[in-house]
Amino acid sequence: MNDRASPPVTLHVCVTCRRGEEPLEPLQERSGHKMQAALTEAMQNAGAAGIELVPAECLSGCKRSCTVALASPGKWSYVIADLDPARHAGDILAFAKAYAAHPEGVPAWRERPEIVKRSVLARVPPLPQERTA
Amino acid sequence: MNDRASPPVTLHVCVTCRRGEEPLEPLQERSGHKMQAALTEAMQNAGAAGIELVPAECLSGCKRSCTVALASPGKWSYVIADLDPARHAGDILAFAKAYAAHPEGVPAWRERPEIVKRSVLARVPPLPQERTA
Repeated sequence: MNDRASPPVTLHVCVTCRRGEEPLEPLQERSGHKMQAALTEAMQNAGAAGIELVPAECLSGCKRSCTVALASPGKWSYVIADLDPARHAGDILAFAKAYAAHPEGVPAWRERPEIVKRSVLARVPPLPQERTA
Repeated sequence: MNDRASPPVTLHVCVTCRRGEEPLEPLQERSGHKMQAALTEAMQNAGAAGIELVPAECLSGCKRSCTVALASPGKWSYVIADLDPARHAGDILAFAKAYAAHPEGVPAWRERPEIVKRSVLARVPPLPQERTA
């Protein structure tokens, strides 16, 4: 299953996340939607080869919005919380690139932006049948 | 990738989790190790076809020990926290079975044990290339 040197990385962005007192409607006013837009812009500006941005509805981190998750076959998955679309899109993209470059998806601590050091909500090991190491 | 009717389910149990003031050593005294033992016993007693228990080192839920994660190709992954090895092994096994039976790994709310309703720390969508629906 892992016969490619660099499997694609999926960056799931929760588009239903609300921060603070944001109303339920319109959806476009939610910070999750703004996070999706900010990540899209950052990826267009900085390049993001091999990283696919995919909208998700709820990563169950509602109390710590905004949230994103990184996943890739054979790698650990990471859920990152406490994100502000006005400040953290570049940091998330930087972490996604470090994640893409690491064979197990576990970038060294020094390679992690400060917000990522503080805000990993949870991580999930690779499936046994997909492990590369 | 999803050509099997029921892909195997992996139940990751964090064996390094410590609850309360538990010491670092010996590892066997940590609640994470006790959770692994309790789940092993529950699976032997109640049966757990298609569910594989796999020890993990840190699911990044340390502040909400004990933690486990459920994952399977093409399904959502779930990280569940706040678990007590003396009380919750049976509930986790019941949820793992409901998870195994659901094609997307998202059991209906009424099928979730109370501890699971309260304690989902995060969830991660299936990879786009593994989605079944």
